[in-house]
Amino acid sequence: MVILIQCKDSVGLVAAISGLMAQKNINIVSMREHVDTEANQFFVRLVAEQYGSTGELLTDLRAVLPADASIGVNPDPEKKIILLVTKEYHCLSDILVRNHFKTLGASVQCVIGNHDVLQNICERFEVPFHLVSHKNKSKEFFEVGLAEVINQYPHDYLVLAKFMRILSPQFVALFPLRIVNIHHSFLPAFMGASPYKQAYLRGVKLIGATAHFVTNDLDEGPIIEQQIIPVNHTFTAADMIKAGKEVEKSVLAKALKMLFEDRVFVYNNKTVVFE
Amino acid sequence: MVILIQCKDSVGLVAAISGLMAQKNINIVSMREHVDTEANQFFVRLVAEQYGSTGELLTDLRAVLPADASIGVNPDPEKKIILLVTKEYHCLSDILVRNHFKTLGASVQCVIGNHDVLQNICERFEVPFHLVSHKNKSKEFFEVGLAEVINQYPHDYLVLAKFMRILSPQFVALFPLRIVNIHHSFLPAFMGASPYKQAYLRGVKLIGATAHFVTNDLDEGPIIEQQIIPVNHTFTAADMIKAGKEVEKSVLAKALKMLFEDRVFVYNNKTVVFE
Amino acid sequence: MVILIQCKDSVGLVAAISGLMAQKNINIVSMREHVDTEANQFFVRLVAEQYGSTGELLTDLRAVLPADASIGVNPDPEKKIILLVTKEYHCLSDILVRNHFKTLGASVQCVIGNHDVLQNICERFEVPFHLVSHKNKSKEFFEVGLAEVINQYPHDYLVLAKFMRILSPQFVALFPLRIVNIHHSFLPAFMGASPYKQAYLRGVKLIGATAHFVTNDLDEGPIIEQQIIPVNHTFTAADMIKAGKEVEKSVLAKALKMLFEDRVFVYNNKTVVFE
Amino acid sequence: MVILIQCKDSVGLVAAISGLMAQKNINIVSMREHVDTEANQFFVRLVAEQYGSTGELLTDLRAVLPADASIGVNPDPEKKIILLVTKEYHCLSDILVRNHFKTLGASVQCVIGNHDVLQNICERFEVPFHLVSHKNKSKEFFEVGLAEVINQYPHDYLVLAKFMRILSPQFVALFPLRIVNIHHSFLPAFMGASPYKQAYLRGVKLIGATAHFVTNDLDEGPIIEQQIIPVNHTFTAADMIKAGKEVEKSVLAKALKMLFEDRVFVYNNKTVVFE
Repeated sequence: MVILIQCKDSVGLVAAISGLMAQKNINIVSMREHVDTEANQFFVRLVAEQYGSTGELLTDLRAVLPADASIGVNPDPEKKIILLVTKEYHCLSDILVRNHFKTLGASVQCVIGNHDVLQNICERFEVPFHLVSHKNKSKEFFEVGLAEVINQYPHDYLVLAKFMRILSPQFVALFPLRIVNIHHSFLPAFMGASPYKQAYLRGVKLIGATAHFVTNDLDEGPIIEQQIIPVNHTFTAADMIKAGKEVEKSVLAKALKMLFEDRVFVYNNKTVVFE
Repeated sequence: MVILIQCKDSVGLVAAISGLMAQKNINIVSMREHVDTEANQFFVRLVAEQYGSTGELLTDLRAVLPADASIGVNPDPEKKIILLVTKEYHCLSDILVRNHFKTLGASVQCVIGNHDVLQNICERFEVPFHLVSHKNKSKEFFEVGLAEVINQYPHDYLVLAKFMRILSPQFVALFPLRIVNIHHSFLPAFMGASPYKQAYLRGVKLIGATAHFVTNDLDEGPIIEQQIIPVNHTFTAADMIKAGKEVEKSVLAKALKMLFEDRVFVYNNKTVVFE
Repeated sequence: MVILIQCKDSVGLVAAISGLMAQKNINIVSMREHVDTEANQFFVRLVAEQYGSTGELLTDLRAVLPADASIGVNPDPEKKIILLVTKEYHCLSDILVRNHFKTLGASVQCVIGNHDVLQNICERFEVPFHLVSHKNKSKEFFEVGLAEVINQYPHDYLVLAKFMRILSPQFVALFPLRIVNIHHSFLPAFMGASPYKQAYLRGVKLIGATAHFVTNDLDEGPIIEQQIIPVNHTFTAADMIKAGKEVEKSVLAKALKMLFEDRVFVYNNKTVVFE
Repeated sequence: MVILIQCKDSVGLVAAISGLMAQKNINIVSMREHVDTEANQFFVRLVAEQYGSTGELLTDLRAVLPADASIGVNPDPEKKIILLVTKEYHCLSDILVRNHFKTLGASVQCVIGNHDVLQNICERFEVPFHLVSHKNKSKEFFEVGLAEVINQYPHDYLVLAKFMRILSPQFVALFPLRIVNIHHSFLPAFMGASPYKQAYLRGVKLIGATAHFVTNDLDEGPIIEQQIIPVNHTFTAADMIKAGKEVEKSVLAKALKMLFEDRVFVYNNKTVVFE
C-alpha cells in the first residue's frame, strides 16, 4: 500500500509514522521523505505491506499526525483518465499503446477531440472517441460540451495530449490539480503560441518540452517533468517541430508514470517528485 | 589551413571553391557546408593542405566567388583573448588551467577584474591581472578604464567569464562579435538578474547555461552553445547555483573551443557552428 | 534527389562532383562529406535539385569518379521493410504507429513473429502478420520458414524489433547490411543474453541500447546509434528492463530514421552517419 | 550531523532511529532510506540537528539497532585525501582548483606522481608533491615507496586521478574501499588498457568514464558514477581521448562530491548513492 502525507514540518513526524507501522508489525518497503525548510513543509511517501483496512490506518494516522496533515492512503493503483486531443497523434498513440498493453498504470476512459482526425486511431484500440468541436461556439459553450462528456466517465485526471485550445479559469477550477498538459517548449522559455517558431528565430541550441499541471495562468502551473534535445543550425522550424514531438512524447510519458504511481506532491506552484 | 566563406547562395559555389583547390592540387582534409535556404545564405568551412601564400589564395578565391563574399583565410590558430571577471573563480580557473597547459587553443593576454578577489589565482598562473573597479564611477568612466587596459594587449576576443556588470551599447560596439558571455541560465528562460532564484521559484526540473556573443540587447546576442543539467525538489536556490557552476564552466569551454577553432559563423542573430 | 558516393580518397573528388552539378546548373541543397584519413576513404552525401534522369546522372558521375567508386543515386525515398518480432510490443508498436501515420519514412510490408502474441496489434493496424514458430525445428528449418515469408514481399531492410532468436551466418549472408537489430545494452558492454541482469549485478549507473547492423558475429556488427539513461540503486533488474524499453524504442527509431533517409555509410565494421 | 546506518533489514528500523531522534527532540533535516529486498539490506542516511555528544548518540543508537548494524556518526566533514597521478593534468587541476577555493569538501594532503611533470602545478597551489618513480623497480618496491609517502599524511581516501599504474592486491588491501579510481571508459565496456583506441575501432557512438572503488580485480570495483558523451565518425582516437578528458573530469568530480558528503554505501560490489 502507498501512503502519502503532507503537512507543516515538526519534530517527530517520521517517528510517529514509522512508529505506528512498527507497532502493527508492518514492514516499510520504501520511504521517501522531503522537508522544504524554507516553506516549512514535510512530505513523505511510504510503500508498506498491507495494514488491515484503509479506514483503520487512516484513523490511526490521524491520531498521531498534526490536524492539518493531508493524508492519502492506498490510492487507486489504476487511475482513470480522459484524454483531450486536437490533431497530433504522437502523444495520444503512445498513451493508447501503453493503455492497450496494460503498462500505462492508468485506464483511458475516453478521448475527446475538438477535431475528428484522431477518431480512427482510437477506434482501432476500442477506446471511445467524442468529437466536441469548438467551431462557431463561444469558449463557454465549448467547455460545457467538454464537461458533459467528461462527466459521463469516472476520471482521476484529464490529460491534454496536444490539446490546442486554451481552457478558461472557470473550467480549470472544476479539476484542481487534475489537468496535466504537455507544453512544447522548455518552460518558461517560449511560453504561449508557436514555441518552435520562436526557438528557431532565437537560434537556440536545445529544445525541450514540459509536462505541467494546468492552473489559471497559461503555461504557469506546477512543472512535473522537463527534458530537452540538442538542435543546431541545420534544423528548420519544421525540423524542430518534428524533433520536438519525440521529446514531448517522452516527457509526457514520464510525467504520467510519476503521477500514476502517486509520486507527485504539489505546493507553492511547484512539485515534489519522488522518482 | 582553414578557409571560411560566407555569401549569398547561388549555384556553383562549392564547385568554384573545390575546383580551385583541385586545380592547384590541394587536398581538402575536411569540408563543412551549410545553406540557410530561408535566408539564402551559404556557409563553408574548409580545412585544406597548405596552398602557397595566403595572399595568393585570397586573390584566387575572390576571382571565383561573388563580390559580396566574406572570406577568411588561415586565421591565427592561436587567438589572443582577454578575460573579464568579477568574483567567481570557476570559469576563470578552468580557462587558466587550459591556458597554462596549452590546450585552450588561445592565449590569455590578461585578466581584468572589477574586484580583486581573483588576482591571486591569476598570479599563480603568471597571467597579468588588472583591477578596474566600478565603484564610485559612472558606467562611461568605468568602461574607459576597461578599454584602456584592453588596448594595452592584442585581443581577438573578450571573454566575460562571469563578469557581473552590464556593458553599454557604446562599449559593445567597439568589439562587434568579439565579446563572448556565459549566461547562467538556459536562455531565453530567465533573462536578466538572479536566474537561479527565478528557476528555483518556478520549480523547473532542468537548469542550464548559455554561451553567446554580446550585442546591444542584454542576453539577446547569438547563441553559441547551451547545455542543461537536471535538478529536483531537493535543490535549494543555493544548490542550483552550485550545480549551475559546473554547467557554466562546461558550456563556456565548449563555446570557446568552437570559436578558437574557427567553427562559428554569425548571421541574423544566430550562429552556424560546424562542430 | 539524394546522391551517395563512397570511394578511395584522392584530390579533386568534391570538385569533380560539384563541378558536374554546376555545369548542369543544378543547385546543391545540402552536402555532407567525410574523409577517414586513416582508412583513406571518402564519403559524400548530396541532396540536389532534380537532374534529368537518374541514368544520365549515373553515367555522368561514373565519367568523373574513380572506377572503384560506389555510387547510389536517388534511392527509393520510401523503403520497404519487414519486421521480425518475438513477444515485446514496445518497438513494434512505435514503428506501426509511425507507419500508420506515414511518418516512418518507410513502409512496413509485414511482420513475422516466432510467437503469436503480437498478431493482434498488427491486425489493428492492418499490417500482415506471419507466425513462423521456432518450436521443434532446427535453426536451419526455422530460417527456411522465415525466408519463405520474406521472399513474398519486397524488402529493403529486415528490422529485428526485439526478435529474440540468433540468426545463423548463412541466413545473415542472404541480407548483407540489410538487417538491423536493437540490442538492449550499451554495446560492447553486456553482449549476449540478459544484459539487464548483467547490468544490475554489476551495479552500473547508466544503461543503454544499441542499434546495429547484424553481421555474423553476434552483437558485433556496425553500430548505427546508441543512447543511455541513468539508473541507480533503487532499480531492480526488472526496473532496468522497463526503463530500458524506453531507450530501446528511441534508439531504434533514431537509427531507422537515419537509415531511411539514406544517411548511413558502412565500412570497416563502422558507420558514417550524416545526421 | 550526518548518521549512516547499514544492517540487515527488519521491521521497525526507521521507527527505532527516528523514535530516538524524536525522544531527544532532535529535528531530522533530511533522511534517505533504501532497502535492497533481494539482498535484505537496509541503508539509511540522516542529516539531523546536533545531538549532544557523538559518543552518547552512538551508544543510544547501538541500544536500539541490531548488533550487526554498521553505524557511522558525524564523520569528518572535511575528508583528508591524497592524490596519485601520472602525467595527465585535467583531473588533478580540477581537484586542485576546488581544493584551493575550499569547495572540494575535502583537503588535499599531498600529491604523489610516478612522473614529475605535474610537480609544477602542485607547487603553484602550494600542495606538497612527491615523486615516487616506478622506473627500475619491482611493483612491490614501488608500492613500498608509495606507502611510505602516504603514511606521512592523514588520509581518508586515496584518489587515483589518472594514475596509470596497476596496484597490487596487497597494496589495495591496505586501503579497503578507500581508493577511488577514474577509469576512462564506460565500464564494463573496454576494460583494461587503451579504452579509447578500443572504442574508436569498435565505432561506438558514445564514450564514457567511470569512477569506482578499487578492489583486487582491475576495473571491477563498485561503481560510484558514470557519464557519457556522444561521439561520431569524425572523431579520431585522439579526438576521443580529448573529449573523454572532459567527461573524466566531470565524473570524478561528481563521485568525489558524493563521497565527501558521505552519500555512498557499498555492498555486494555495488554502491548505494543518496544523491
